[in-house]
Amino acid sequence: PGSISFITQSGSLGLALAEWTIDTGIGLCKVISTGNKADVDDVDLIEYLNNDPSTGVIAMYVEGIKRGRDFIDAVRRVRKPIVAIKTGRSKRGAKAVFSHTGSIAGSDEVYSAAFRQAGILRVDIIDELFDAALAFSCQPLPSGNNVAILSNGGGASIVAADECERQSLNIVDLTPETREKIKKVIPQFASNSNPIDTAGTVSFEIYDNIIKALHDDPNVDAIIVIYVHTTMSSAMPPAEAVVEMKLKCIKAKSRKPIIACWMGGAGTEEGVEILKSGCIPNYPVPERAVKALSCLIKHQEFLDKVKIGVGQEDKMGRCK
Amino acid sequence: PGSISFITQSGSLGLALAEWTIDTGIGLCKVISTGNKADVDDVDLIEYLNNDPSTGVIAMYVEGIKRGRDFIDAVRRVRKPIVAIKTGRSKRGAKAVFSHTGSIAGSDEVYSAAFRQAGILRVDIIDELFDAALAFSCQPLPSGNNVAILSNGGGASIVAADECERQSLNIVDLTPETREKIKKVIPQFASNSNPIDTAGTVSFEIYDNIIKALHDDPNVDAIIVIYVHTTMSSAMPPAEAVVEMKLKCIKAKSRKPIIACWMGGAGTEEGVEILKSGCIPNYPVPERAVKALSCLIKHQEFLDKVKIGVGQEDKMGRCK
Repeated sequence: PGSISFITQSGSLGLALAEWTIDTGIGLCKVISTGNKADVDDVDLIEYLNNDPSTGVIAMYVEGIKRGRDFIDAVRRVRKPIVAIKTGRSKRGAKAVFSHTGSIAGSDEVYSAAFRQAGILRVDIIDELFDAALAFSCQPLPSGNNVAILSNGGGASIVAADECERQSLNIVDLTPETREKIKKVIPQFASNSNPIDTAGTVSFEIYDNIIKALHDDPNVDAIIVIYVHTTMSSAMPPAEAVVEMKLKCIKAKSRKPIIACWMGGAGTEEGVEILKSGCIPNYPVPERAVKALSCLIKHQEFLDKVKIGVGQEDKMGRCK
Repeated sequence: PGSISFITQSGSLGLALAEWTIDTGIGLCKVISTGNKADVDDVDLIEYLNNDPSTGVIAMYVEGIKRGRDFIDAVRRVRKPIVAIKTGRSKRGAKAVFSHTGSIAGSDEVYSAAFRQAGILRVDIIDELFDAALAFSCQPLPSGNNVAILSNGGGASIVAADECERQSLNIVDLTPETREKIKKVIPQFASNSNPIDTAGTVSFEIYDNIIKALHDDPNVDAIIVIYVHTTMSSAMPPAEAVVEMKLKCIKAKSRKPIIACWMGGAGTEEGVEILKSGCIPNYPVPERAVKALSCLIKHQEFLDKVKIGVGQEDKMGRCK
């Protein structure tokens, strides 16, 4: 059991999500399939889940909303993050929506605007829906959008940096002290500026020292840790370093999320298992890690701007 | 051994791709890591791979190109599909690119324009690079952009339809004969218009009949087959139907690609194994299936427009 609850107009997508959560090792709280919404609708469900102590994040698959105004009002009262995919934006899709659940897909722009006002994070693809829910379910919201990236592969860190800029996240300048600490544990030809590239070297000690340095850097709000598998390295020690840091964060009630990206398929499995058991959100490519983090940041920004006075719930360590 | 060759300025991404191909069961041909390109560069490599009979598709991870004009000229002579990700588009990314391989990232718009002119398919994220390479490596290029979608879940088919429109693919009207054939095998409340939704029902017979009907429909250029796993169904029979159709296509030298999307993680594993062994490109979410298909279509459109007189190589059944 975890903290992700899913409201879906497609029963089969609900089942797919359930299976996916088994894969990722992250528990699911409730899956509610609404279909054509003859008796219960989203307004009731949102209110119910907002009061449900075991729900930490609400994911939605939406084809159409019936009581639009009531829905927006209900959502604005919700402190929990809501991530939604809204389909039927294409002509064919809208026709299929009507035949599927009898919903009127409506103007896509109207939905986007309404979701934005209400603080719903609208994502475009199913991957992103699940990815964001995973991050919300086991990491705290960061205080700001200043991101640090650690990687043992230059290419992967550059891909992550590009995606950060696309998502308006800031690749922050590290303090001289942090850079000095990092310099001590990486080869001379590696990069100790953000994004940090250890130039292939990877061990528990290297990752542990760097992650700690980043965590102690007051400029950094969130950390992305990337590991690219090679035949010369093991995926486990860096994963252990990440999990150890997370345990320290929970103890210290720190609000710096750590997001992982272990690349390289089958070769990384043992490391991925360690991340799962430590409740670290892990993604197979850097872009998905960055997008998931971006949802955490956007939700905090929304709370700061709109929901003043509404404190952040501490979701640290909620899963497991 | 398969037909995907990968030219990469990041050695670690090359290794990650190699691991990924083990996962997907699709073989890799050559991985060439170029680094800072001191002696060999992309122009030489593109020409070499163009003449390499075992290479069917070229994937590239690019940080910077040195001999721009020569590179474009070389690419325009290549008949094989080239899919590329170009990083360093962000300020931080460009800085990291320079520290990584000494490349000048250059103007992102210039790269986009040059790639487009040369017929290189530029993708934005690593997933898409691998996904497209997979589709090219084991499916023929379609004659046009008229797509049919078959799914046992309404939500997933709508997601696919939306993504098709985003990628400028046409969800085609099926002929009355096709719709009649489909009507015979699905429940009355299911949808026999494109996207086809079997409303949960799934079996070898249902999928086999529908895929055949779609294949025989002259309006249809390409088929996307989606299966959403539920506890009431098995992922294997529909996978067998897809593989059987592919074998028939190879025999008939048909040019209609079939792209699969088996959703539901661990529950679909046995079905996914069947798809792999039949060399069917399979993706975990509909959007990735649509994007990969869209690369096949765009490449054919490029060949039609620009490379007149250059015949399509028959890549059917090249893998395995």
